[in-house]
Amino acid sequence: MIAKLTDPERVAAFAELSAWQKVDGRDAMQRSFRFKDFVEAWGFMNRVALLAEKQDHHPEWSNVYNRVEILLTTHDCKGLSARDVTLARAIDALVGK
Amino acid sequence: MIAKLTDPERVAAFAELSAWQKVDGRDAMQRSFRFKDFVEAWGFMNRVALLAEKQDHHPEWSNVYNRVEILLTTHDCKGLSARDVTLARAIDALVGK
Repeated sequence: MIAKLTDPERVAAFAELSAWQKVDGRDAMQRSFRFKDFVEAWGFMNRVALLAEKQDHHPEWSNVYNRVEILLTTHDCKGLSARDVTLARAIDALVGK
Repeated sequence: MIAKLTDPERVAAFAELSAWQKVDGRDAMQRSFRFKDFVEAWGFMNRVALLAEKQDHHPEWSNVYNRVEILLTTHDCKGLSARDVTLARAIDALVGK
């Protein structure tokens, strides 16, 4: 069973992952990305897809041309877990922060 | 300038593309897809991404694990155009209907 983040863990996670926002009404984190064009956005999404599959932890995400929205949460515990923090860190590393 | 579909063209398009639904409040068409797992869904999305880039016409779409939602509309004319019909046909061909 995957545990939800404790309150102190949650505070630490949002402090570290400062580009990620809390989500109204859901225990989740989200981040928006904007690229030069669709090809750049899709290249990024493919890299995230490989990370997600490798970590066996998949985002809820959407794309419109050069924009990508990623929401992370853990369905098994119905909220944020260490898995989300790990994936968010890896995504941040792809874009350099 | 890209023209919106005329009313008869719109009727014909939804008759032909019977797996696509009208969208409340928007002049758009949408279709939902469900696959075995993320790898299958992502493989499909990559094929759609290449079609979209080749046609220079990009969907609004989202993915959650094995589910994919695709919405087509043409921003240049703020509604459905022949470009959406062409892309929808090509997407249908990928999944065999």
